[in-house]
This record gives sequence, C-alpha cells and structure tokens, in this order.
Amino acid sequence: MTIQTALSELHTVLGDRLSRSASDLEIHGRSEVHFADAPPDAVAYPETTEEVSRIMAICHANDCPVVGWGTGTSLEGHALAVRGGVTVDFTRMNKVLEVNLEDMDVRIQPGLTREDLNRELRATGLFFPVDPGANASLGGMASTRASGTTAVRYGTMRDNVLALEVVLSDGRVIRTGSRARKTAAGYDLTALFVGSEGTLGLITELTLRLRGQPEAVSAGICSFATISDAVNTVIATIQMGIPMARIEFVDAATARAFNAYSGAKMQDAPHLMVEFHGSPAGVAEQAERFGEIVAEMGGSPFKWSSEVEDRNALWKMRHNAYYAIVASRPGCTAMATDICVPISRLAEAVEQTIEDIEKGTIPAPILGHVGDGNFHATILIKKGNAAELAEAKALSHRMALRALALGGTVTGEHGVGMGKLSYMEAEHGPAWEVMSDIKRTLDPTGIMNPGKMVRTN
Amino acid sequence: MTIQTALSELHTVLGDRLSRSASDLEIHGRSEVHFADAPPDAVAYPETTEEVSRIMAICHANDCPVVGWGTGTSLEGHALAVRGGVTVDFTRMNKVLEVNLEDMDVRIQPGLTREDLNRELRATGLFFPVDPGANASLGGMASTRASGTTAVRYGTMRDNVLALEVVLSDGRVIRTGSRARKTAAGYDLTALFVGSEGTLGLITELTLRLRGQPEAVSAGICSFATISDAVNTVIATIQMGIPMARIEFVDAATARAFNAYSGAKMQDAPHLMVEFHGSPAGVAEQAERFGEIVAEMGGSPFKWSSEVEDRNALWKMRHNAYYAIVASRPGCTAMATDICVPISRLAEAVEQTIEDIEKGTIPAPILGHVGDGNFHATILIKKGNAAELAEAKALSHRMALRALALGGTVTGEHGVGMGKLSYMEAEHGPAWEVMSDIKRTLDPTGIMNPGKMVRTN
Repeated sequence: MTIQTALSELHTVLGDRLSRSASDLEIHGRSEVHFADAPPDAVAYPETTEEVSRIMAICHANDCPVVGWGTGTSLEGHALAVRGGVTVDFTRMNKVLEVNLEDMDVRIQPGLTREDLNRELRATGLFFPVDPGANASLGGMASTRASGTTAVRYGTMRDNVLALEVVLSDGRVIRTGSRARKTAAGYDLTALFVGSEGTLGLITELTLRLRGQPEAVSAGICSFATISDAVNTVIATIQMGIPMARIEFVDAATARAFNAYSGAKMQDAPHLMVEFHGSPAGVAEQAERFGEIVAEMGGSPFKWSSEVEDRNALWKMRHNAYYAIVASRPGCTAMATDICVPISRLAEAVEQTIEDIEKGTIPAPILGHVGDGNFHATILIKKGNAAELAEAKALSHRMALRALALGGTVTGEHGVGMGKLSYMEAEHGPAWEVMSDIKRTLDPTGIMNPGKMVRTN
Repeated sequence: MTIQTALSELHTVLGDRLSRSASDLEIHGRSEVHFADAPPDAVAYPETTEEVSRIMAICHANDCPVVGWGTGTSLEGHALAVRGGVTVDFTRMNKVLEVNLEDMDVRIQPGLTREDLNRELRATGLFFPVDPGANASLGGMASTRASGTTAVRYGTMRDNVLALEVVLSDGRVIRTGSRARKTAAGYDLTALFVGSEGTLGLITELTLRLRGQPEAVSAGICSFATISDAVNTVIATIQMGIPMARIEFVDAATARAFNAYSGAKMQDAPHLMVEFHGSPAGVAEQAERFGEIVAEMGGSPFKWSSEVEDRNALWKMRHNAYYAIVASRPGCTAMATDICVPISRLAEAVEQTIEDIEKGTIPAPILGHVGDGNFHATILIKKGNAAELAEAKALSHRMALRALALGGTVTGEHGVGMGKLSYMEAEHGPAWEVMSDIKRTLDPTGIMNPGKMVRTN
C-alpha cells in the first residue's frame, strides 16, 4: 500500500508509458503561474479507457494519488502533484471518435485540444465555440468548467458538454448523460463532473455540442470616456437582446499595452471589442443597433467591418493581450485574477479594483468578458521580488473579497486549483461541506487530485 | 421516532398550517395520471425557510418521510406519498423577492407559478421563458428539470436557474450558486439539485435568469407529406443557425383532433408549428429563410404572421392539444410518454412509434418539441379498462426501450417520478449507483421523497 508498489504494478500495465524521467517529472510538476513546483512520482500515458481504469484500480488499492493532465495551461495550479503520486497525461488519448453532423455533436477523447478539434471540423460547417484563449485540452476545459470570450453567446463548458465517460477512483467506468439534447432522467452527473477538477474521477471521453459556423461575422471596437459608460453599453446591449458573439472590455492600461506591443493606435481610454455572428443582414443589423447604443452612451463612433483581415487583426491583438501586458513591464511574471460579479455591479468592481491598483506600486492592466461580468487584472510582479509577490497576493485577495461582497464569485472561469481553495468556505458557506461530503462519497480514499477543492485535514 | 411523534411536534411549530383534513390528504395523494393514490399523513404549509428547516429537523429526528408539493401538475406521480409522512405544500411561499432589471435575474420563492411570475414581470420588459404548458410552480419546475415548447431557444430549467436555497434532510440550509452569470468555483450543486425531484432536499428559494421580451414575434404553420420531411426541415433549420423560439411537431392524428376540437382546417398530415423572436427585420428574415427550407423539403407553403391574434390562435390550439386529444376519444384517461432522442434518429423514432400504435387497438396521437428530439404519444385509455391500461403500459414500455436503443433518454422533460424509475438502471448503468451513493450521502435516513429516483430495497 505505497506509491512505490503502485508504480511497480503500473509499470507492468504501461511499460515505457509509465515515465519517471527527470524531465517528465519536471514538466508535470510546474504550473504557468507563481505556485511552487510539485512534481509527481511518475507520469502515465494511457491510450485507452481500459488502461485508465486499470491505473485507477491499482492506485486505489495502493493509496496512490492521481492527478489528471491535459496541456498544463491551468492558471491556478490545478495539476500540481502536491502529494506526489501519478500524473495521468492524456496526450495519447486525443482522437475524434465520432462526428454527428445532423445532431451537431462530436464524441472525442479528453487529450484532444480545442484547436485540433476545430481544425478537424473545418470542412463540416460546424465548430466548437468555447474559447478560453489557450489551446487547452477539452478534457481539461471540462474539468475546470472553462469559458472565455464567446461564453456570452455560446455558454461555458457547463453548457456544451452533453455526456461524459468517467473513470471513478476505484476504476469503475461510468457514462453520464446521452446524445439527447435534454433529459429529466435523474441527477445531472455530467454537470457534477464538469468543473470537478479531477477530484471525483478522470474524464476519458466527452460528447460535445457543436454549432453551425456563422454565415457572416462582423467585428468592431470603440472607446468610452469612463468605465461606467462602457459597462452601461454592455447592459443595454444585452437587455436589447442583441446576440453578441463576443463583447470584451479592456481598460486604458491594456490599451496602452496594445499600442506598445501591436502598434495599435487606441485611445488612452477604456474600450469594448465586439463580434457578431449571423446572416449577412443579421450581423449588419446587430452592428447598427450596437452602434446606436454606443452613440447614446457617448462612446467613440463604433467602427465595424465584415472583412476577415480586419477581424483577425482585432482578435489577434486581443488574444495576445497576455503577452502585451507582460511585455509592458520587462522582467516580470504574471499573477492572474478572475472575479465575476452580477453585471450591475461590474462598473464598481472594475473601478474599485483600478483605484486599489493605483494605490499600490505594481501595474495590473484589466480586461474582461464583460457580457458575463467576468474580468481579470493581470498583476505584473518583478521576478524574484518577494515584496511585490506579497503585494500582488494582497491585491488578489482584496479582489476576491470584493467579488463576494458584490454577490459574485472568486473565479469565473479559471477554477479553484491551488489559488482559490482558501475562498471556498467564504463563497459557499455550508454548501462547501456538501461538496466535501460528495467528494468523500466518490473518492473515499482521497486519492483523486488530493489537496484540492475540499477541506483537507 | 414515528410519523405520529413528528406530526405532534410539527403541530407545535405550524399550528393550523399542519393539516390532516380528509380533503387535504386526498388532494395531495392524487396525481394527474394513472398511478394509484398515495396520500400523506399530513400536509404542512410553511411560510418561511426557517419553518421548512424546522420541519426537516423534526422529520429527520423522527424518520418521517417528506414530499415537496408545488401545484401537483407532475405527469409521473413525483409527489405521491408512497410511504406516507408529510407533504410540504409551498403554496404560501409564492413571493417575488427581488427583481434585478440590469442583471436580468429574479429571486423568488418556490411556490410562485410561472404565469404569476410573468404577470409580475410584464411591465419590466423581461420574462421567464421556460414554458412546460401547465401553470406549474417554479420550485416544482426546477425539481423536475422541466422544459417545454421554448427549450429549443431558451434552454430548460437546467439552463435558467442561477442559484438556489435548499433545506437539506437534517434541516441545514445551504445556498448554491450566485447571481454571477458563470462560475468555476467548485462542484455545480445548483445543477445537482435541479432535477433531483425532492430526493436530496427542499428548494426554498430560486434565482432565475430572465430574458428581454422580444421586440417582434412571428409565428406560422406548415404541413408535410411525411414525418421525415418535417424532421429534415427541423434539422436543416437548426444547422442553418436560425434561432427558432419554438418548433413544434404534430402528427396527422393530432391535426385531426385539432380540427375536431378547435375547428381548425389543418390537412390530415404531419405539421410543424413555429415561432420566431427578434427584431422586426430579424423575425421577417428568419421566417423567410425557414419558408425556403420548407419549400425545399416539399412542405406546404409556409404561412406566417406577426399579428398577435393569429399567433395567439395558433398557440392556444397547441396549448389545448392535451384536451383536444383526450376529447378525440370520449370516456378516456391519458397516459403521457416523453422520450427524447438525438434529432438524427427522431424520424425513425416517431415512425416506429406510429407503426407500433397502429398495430394496437388504442389511439395515441403524437406531438413534440422536435427541435430537441423530444416527443409525446398521448395514449388514450378507456376509463377502468384493465386490458387497455395493460396495452398502454406495454406501448409506453416499448417507447422507452426504443429511446434507449436510439441513444436517447426515457424522459426528456417530465422526470422520473413513479413512472420511469424502472428504467434508471437501463439508461444509466453503473452511473445509477453513483446517484444512489449521492442520495445516501445527502439523505442518510432516506426521508426525502422515499421510493423515488434511486434503488429502493
């Protein structure tokens, strides 16, 4: 009943596909952000659900921790092996298993990345809409309930996973949901596993809902004198029922970073970057109506275009925001934040955060998925500077408390991982105990991504 | 530790609001369908969450079963008190607690009905879109994961409940979710309680997502030579991305029933009844595009109208379908069915069902929410005729198995209740055991709506 026993049994199952090389342990012991490294004892590369089931049965029998791994792009240290054990890397389980054109769904393995899926779908007229920025694995995106710029129109992973195959902590394999578009047959286990961050089981197959590639797309940008004007534009737009495909906010600091990094010529002011999907007449009408709201709110004339080059330039700039922001302060590392509040409280949340940032010494440009009330301040810390790290943590802490005080959540889309565990009780109260009860029921020996999600003794 | 002890303690808390009158027990012991009556020992009428919590604590201490009650419009006998105990009737907890116009959400009590909510919202420009036909309570709709004609556009209760307050089996009160539009902070307990049919806790408050009342609405109807043509029209419409607000199928038998009951002049053929929501130009464009698809599929010329009278006449006829169908065979009672399949399998599911019905002796007109792949055969049984009841049950059984064989679910929107419990293992396999484990964790003494949802010994 030790990790070592588990590893020796796993070796007989996986052979060379159980790696203990220093480089493999190092890669799988890192995260993209500021947490301390925590490597596993071994990395397993299963190729089938049956192998994942055998891995779990062995680890269950030997009290060996198990951590799932997609592409390692988590921003909250979800996959750090804080108690060692085995990291299960799904790289080799990355196939499209079945595309159902008429049903607009697809069955895939969890290691497939969203860009690879959309590449495979390109000729079908369908696409998978959830876009968290990073080219994450779809199993990882489901595990963290990821979303991103298109959630305002297409929802998050919660809304786009129809069914799962999951290997439980003792190796049992279950299927949740079906390809039916809706069901009232029992507890929604699909929704329970989506966002469970590998603490209840390992996802070995996903059935995802697809959408038709929009016939026409238009996009545009405009600036505002104040953050309130920008946010009020968003509120009015959504109340009017304009079906925005994206509606992204950037603050003046981010606009300056874009100018420096991408040679943009943005005003030193808050901006909205938007996209419309629909028929040619539909997107034109949506853009016109959005432009009228912008004008009423005193925004800069709204310029939009249906040209693919213009749109690509706009979203390339947006997708490179992280790099533009990091480059704006040379020699820095970033701390991500991710609060989400009711949209009526968004302006004050952003304004209070900017005021808070300006009182300190560290820059932290803000951008956000403003149609959902979700925004990120990217806190730029001089590498190795302990005082700045402490200041950043304090700022991030105040943001989390501010989100809760405004009726929101400490994480809109990044997940709990290592960084938000300490807020679970404040956010959920006694409901956190119910989560812990469910965790103990599905993982009685506590081997699934231990040290995460629930109270740990 | 008996039901009698519980009732005496409950009386001290509730006084007259604990009823043991014969008429109250009878009303709360009936369902709308063919199941045998099963009255509770008493009916409680709480007015506050605090009272619900005290009721649960008393029942928990005394092993007394508890069943939640909204309006009693369930079609699967969800609220039958098969082990006696206390039925908690939420009629007195029917208030709108908070309307947030900018956030487009509302906080309500569970006994509020959807029509009362929409009446209160009328002047706000917002509405709650889920429409199961019956004027059900919103707590009941959440508990059964209800949907209906508008789910194809606005989703089911799963998609429209943002947050809940729930009283657990031991009286603890928890809150799940928040008013933030999305969150990645832990297990999705809101989704776990939605559709749990009162077996995990009692919902005492709901935060619901609202939508803007559409600026323009148009609706229309058309007929097809075959069921395949109708279904292929639906598939093409959804793949084109036309955002249908409703797309309802009725078979020839239902069309005949409409003609007889409402004086309609429908062809003796399958029909689609559709509705579009949007801007005036938007709904016109949607209707034109839909009409082109109908023409390509060889349907009758698609007639549509933006006149409110025309639309009301159309949907009044559709909403009265149940009565029209029941009237088509005098002296009958109805058995509802509710299968849902991937849309690519819908035509064969409907055709096989009609073939099956035609082999038998009992009429069973079909209609359905065809954009979701969900349809109902309403089986018309002569009252008190045991042979017909047996034939109806056998037909319903074959429909359920057909749904599973086609990759679907035995219940798209009515729920499990008494009628679908025997299919849970066939539909979910080992995942049903996980549901049972969760049930035992949240309700260790098994007092919450006992005899439902999970394996019972």
